[in-house]
Amino acid sequence: MSELVSIIMGSRSDWSTMEHCSRTLDALGVEHDVKILSAHRTPEALADYVGTLEERGFEVVIAAAGGAAALPGAVAGLTTLPVLGVPIQAWALDGLDSLLSMVQMPGGIAVGTLSIGKAGAVNAAVLAASILGNKYPELRRAVAEHRRERAEKVLAEGDPRRSAGG
Amino acid sequence: MSELVSIIMGSRSDWSTMEHCSRTLDALGVEHDVKILSAHRTPEALADYVGTLEERGFEVVIAAAGGAAALPGAVAGLTTLPVLGVPIQAWALDGLDSLLSMVQMPGGIAVGTLSIGKAGAVNAAVLAASILGNKYPELRRAVAEHRRERAEKVLAEGDPRRSAGG
Amino acid sequence: MSELVSIIMGSRSDWSTMEHCSRTLDALGVEHDVKILSAHRTPEALADYVGTLEERGFEVVIAAAGGAAALPGAVAGLTTLPVLGVPIQAWALDGLDSLLSMVQMPGGIAVGTLSIGKAGAVNAAVLAASILGNKYPELRRAVAEHRRERAEKVLAEGDPRRSAGG
Amino acid sequence: MSELVSIIMGSRSDWSTMEHCSRTLDALGVEHDVKILSAHRTPEALADYVGTLEERGFEVVIAAAGGAAALPGAVAGLTTLPVLGVPIQAWALDGLDSLLSMVQMPGGIAVGTLSIGKAGAVNAAVLAASILGNKYPELRRAVAEHRRERAEKVLAEGDPRRSAGG
Amino acid sequence: MSELVSIIMGSRSDWSTMEHCSRTLDALGVEHDVKILSAHRTPEALADYVGTLEERGFEVVIAAAGGAAALPGAVAGLTTLPVLGVPIQAWALDGLDSLLSMVQMPGGIAVGTLSIGKAGAVNAAVLAASILGNKYPELRRAVAEHRRERAEKVLAEGDPRRSAGG
Amino acid sequence: MSELVSIIMGSRSDWSTMEHCSRTLDALGVEHDVKILSAHRTPEALADYVGTLEERGFEVVIAAAGGAAALPGAVAGLTTLPVLGVPIQAWALDGLDSLLSMVQMPGGIAVGTLSIGKAGAVNAAVLAASILGNKYPELRRAVAEHRRERAEKVLAEGDPRRSAGG
Amino acid sequence: MSELVSIIMGSRSDWSTMEHCSRTLDALGVEHDVKILSAHRTPEALADYVGTLEERGFEVVIAAAGGAAALPGAVAGLTTLPVLGVPIQAWALDGLDSLLSMVQMPGGIAVGTLSIGKAGAVNAAVLAASILGNKYPELRRAVAEHRRERAEKVLAEGDPRRSAGG
Amino acid sequence: MSELVSIIMGSRSDWSTMEHCSRTLDALGVEHDVKILSAHRTPEALADYVGTLEERGFEVVIAAAGGAAALPGAVAGLTTLPVLGVPIQAWALDGLDSLLSMVQMPGGIAVGTLSIGKAGAVNAAVLAASILGNKYPELRRAVAEHRRERAEKVLAEGDPRRSAGG
Repeated sequence: MSELVSIIMGSRSDWSTMEHCSRTLDALGVEHDVKILSAHRTPEALADYVGTLEERGFEVVIAAAGGAAALPGAVAGLTTLPVLGVPIQAWALDGLDSLLSMVQMPGGIAVGTLSIGKAGAVNAAVLAASILGNKYPELRRAVAEHRRERAEKVLAEGDPRRSAGG
Repeated sequence: MSELVSIIMGSRSDWSTMEHCSRTLDALGVEHDVKILSAHRTPEALADYVGTLEERGFEVVIAAAGGAAALPGAVAGLTTLPVLGVPIQAWALDGLDSLLSMVQMPGGIAVGTLSIGKAGAVNAAVLAASILGNKYPELRRAVAEHRRERAEKVLAEGDPRRSAGG
Repeated sequence: MSELVSIIMGSRSDWSTMEHCSRTLDALGVEHDVKILSAHRTPEALADYVGTLEERGFEVVIAAAGGAAALPGAVAGLTTLPVLGVPIQAWALDGLDSLLSMVQMPGGIAVGTLSIGKAGAVNAAVLAASILGNKYPELRRAVAEHRRERAEKVLAEGDPRRSAGG
Repeated sequence: MSELVSIIMGSRSDWSTMEHCSRTLDALGVEHDVKILSAHRTPEALADYVGTLEERGFEVVIAAAGGAAALPGAVAGLTTLPVLGVPIQAWALDGLDSLLSMVQMPGGIAVGTLSIGKAGAVNAAVLAASILGNKYPELRRAVAEHRRERAEKVLAEGDPRRSAGG
Repeated sequence: MSELVSIIMGSRSDWSTMEHCSRTLDALGVEHDVKILSAHRTPEALADYVGTLEERGFEVVIAAAGGAAALPGAVAGLTTLPVLGVPIQAWALDGLDSLLSMVQMPGGIAVGTLSIGKAGAVNAAVLAASILGNKYPELRRAVAEHRRERAEKVLAEGDPRRSAGG
Repeated sequence: MSELVSIIMGSRSDWSTMEHCSRTLDALGVEHDVKILSAHRTPEALADYVGTLEERGFEVVIAAAGGAAALPGAVAGLTTLPVLGVPIQAWALDGLDSLLSMVQMPGGIAVGTLSIGKAGAVNAAVLAASILGNKYPELRRAVAEHRRERAEKVLAEGDPRRSAGG
Repeated sequence: MSELVSIIMGSRSDWSTMEHCSRTLDALGVEHDVKILSAHRTPEALADYVGTLEERGFEVVIAAAGGAAALPGAVAGLTTLPVLGVPIQAWALDGLDSLLSMVQMPGGIAVGTLSIGKAGAVNAAVLAASILGNKYPELRRAVAEHRRERAEKVLAEGDPRRSAGG
Repeated sequence: MSELVSIIMGSRSDWSTMEHCSRTLDALGVEHDVKILSAHRTPEALADYVGTLEERGFEVVIAAAGGAAALPGAVAGLTTLPVLGVPIQAWALDGLDSLLSMVQMPGGIAVGTLSIGKAGAVNAAVLAASILGNKYPELRRAVAEHRRERAEKVLAEGDPRRSAGG
């Protein structure tokens, strides 16, 4: 399968969060591109890159940013592919700024926003695979399998009073 | 085209917001089902309904709720279809409770969350159509057309100092 | 006395908080079960487990979760036993997300929510014992005794200016 | 059945919220007392009133207040009966102050806090009846019945696109 | 004097706020352009418009938007002219989303953010005139005069107990 | 001079903050008592202690607490002496809960609230001395002197670019 | 008795809140001055006015402002008299901005902050009278009497279920 | 070129943030003064210093403060030069207090507020240089060059999956 998902980050420092997205896509068997581009610092390069995604066969874009996190919305304004956003916890305000800057899009341009930070990075991958699963049945099965494994891990937990540590 | 999108609301009172979702889907040419079911009040009926969506050919679920807005997450735990969430502004806290209850999902079960209220209702429809556009090219074109119309409306605005009202 | 209280956690990582609940129940002489089950990852197993609690003689359920903390509300939708909730401070937003996701339940399905984190874990145990105290007078006395000990500890504090440390 | 629940409000103006609690208790068949007493303005009368509740046969106390909503915590410090709190939306801050003042109790003295405002008033009644249901089986049945009626009302909702209004 | 300030709004509905900016610029004697352009809906038209501002002699840009208020940051990424931002109170969250989306810019691309709403609209005009005052002494004097008038209005207030109304 | 100020803390752990209050009172020459008493855990002992303060010659009470910080309001309800409150940063929510629980008192019972944490502890001492300065001129002078020293320290700061460290 | 309290407001529009402060001072028998002066618009006139308060015999200053509510802190930096602050609910953010701008003073310059809005206006008067009560026993008695009246009003409330309205 | 920008900080401890402002101005070739002065502790020295800035040839003032961050507003009330504000993350509330105290200025006195902390310190320098660029073309070019370097750094980032670390 060719690359179907593009991950775009506003800054190199977002990678420590977004590598969890990339690894989850790997685990689900989804080929993907990873790119560092900024809505504010490199708007033209961003427009160039996003403008080619559809014709190159990409089907989902995942964009991550922190603070005044304009990247996902900017991407959504540049393509009609579905865009998912991951708010990165930035230098203050505990991630609330990143979340609100991303989720509160005006009517017409949509960003499907996930949890702040690592959980959101994982979930952007899961949601991307769910979306692709409509067209690629093996990805639907991969999501189901990924979920079953996680559920079994929960169900295998014994009574924590009887385990060491805690 | 058969029904591809299911809209689920936690309460009848959410309809004044979600009718904007339904109308936008209509405008984009997306057949959809609308259902009132509650994660807290009717968990079994919810599980029954969601459990059949995939085999009935649905490809996207949109769930809306307010307050401790558990519905979208509950739906996401019951299906591997992509789930989008619309936070409804509830009886207090200005929508912040609805938003956080929906977006802050733990890793593994994803809800793509849209804006609070009407803008989010519209955008859930737009994002659903973008998702479907990967498989149904006419929906990709419909999204592009919908966007072009809105852009043209913006561009047609003259200098507001020269218009009446304000 | 048989087990009267069930503690349910969404994830193993919640145990470092909830062991304070378990220990307080021990100190008050309340037998209890501890279970890891997730509203989102294992909804069926959760429904199965909660569905049997009443007939097995349980009288109070304590549920703990973080982030989009749907577990207590989900439990409350599955039983008519009283349900208490403990918000776990999660990966961002300083616990506000967990608290709001739990406390802002719609009318009809109630979760009695305690403080965020360890204080809430202790207090869920205390409130559970208060509830049970209506039927089991020895538990009312245990709560009174527990409180008296804590009060005496406060009253025994001398002037902190005369103690070492600080 | 004698009065089992005491509702205490900090101010007469809280009644427009708390009458929903009283009415729900009526609907569930729970006799109750209603009292206006303030933690700040009438601390002695509050202590006198709360001090007699247990011996007079009350089994649950519901306390409601707004702003620096100290009443439920003050009541919880004066009795070992279970105490439930309803945050009233006050003159500013959209109810967040009332909620935090009530829920963030220190370890040892517990307040089971419900939703802000009317939903919380209804739910305090429901949770009180659930608590009493451990000892009075007819109240457990009443809660189950109350829930079934509400669920049926949800399930009876047709497709909102086919109804008038909205 | 030619037009020195450009006011850009994301939506026609922002004009009820931004007309206070335009009027204050008029009162201070600053010629200005007013334009409706959206970062999300019309990114290309925005880039075209902003790209010509410097060569057309503009010296300050004022951008206003609500919700995920990306416009000021997008403008700042497209020009090296000084950019001021006015957060518009949007459909929820009481303006906090608009403010954080605008002010929390990453290092390198700056938006000087003013108060939420009308006060910010007025102040964007005042700050623009202050900026221009470095080069156009008559605008420095106009700002000083504007301030003196406002100060005199405050100082002319008598004891409010002796005035009617209140 | 006899003891004029009483410092009351809800818990021993508050002393690491409130010792800054005690030390500032020492520096200003104000004799004071320090007491650990809890509104929730020891309401009777609190009422006994506060009830004697006026007749024992105390003129200001400073109360500190965290979380659902009811102590200052409880004290204010028990005495007509002026009561100052210091919000202690507690186990979650970054001090916002402590602040709102203290400052949002209903009309009639007042708590003059200072900053969260150490700055508030220092300032409660300064405000207490300002209050006492109306009756004890040497304390007015002590406050003026304390302030002058701090101002001189600010004014003595050279250009930080020329100092080591940072 | 001469004027002992000075009320300063940043704007004429604050009077609808602060007249409750003035009326409460009247009810308590405290003579007071009322002045409109702004920290930002009339800093010199403010410094002149505040600079004379102590020698003119004033003993407490009450300052009210909204938004970036710098007035109380500015007053506190200009006098060693005790300064109380009343946060006015401004044009956005539900009063949180006014509160935080006032209460979070750095160590050394203290503002005793009251509730947001009308309750705070009343309480600033009550706290001022409590402060003055140390020196003027009739004011201590007036505060006690004012409190007794309010308590009696609470205690006279009958069961709200038996009264009309609600 | 003589000194055109004045950086004022409320406290020596703000330097660890504001040295990033000073260094960015150095990098852009903007001569500047750095001064520690407090709105609350040294109001007269502040007024004296700010009062001379215009006649000494300064064209932009940058003011930084934390908590009840009154300094930028106080400066803006003392000069008609453009004033930029940098909120410093203080001892609690994660920088929200500093931001709101600075940005929510009333109409008439403007502070162009930048991001909380280091990013804001850098951006105050960039915005100051943009402002000066209207009069000093070499500074416009310096801003453009500074931006180009940063953009190139972003564009030079390879795929993070192929780099070490992360």
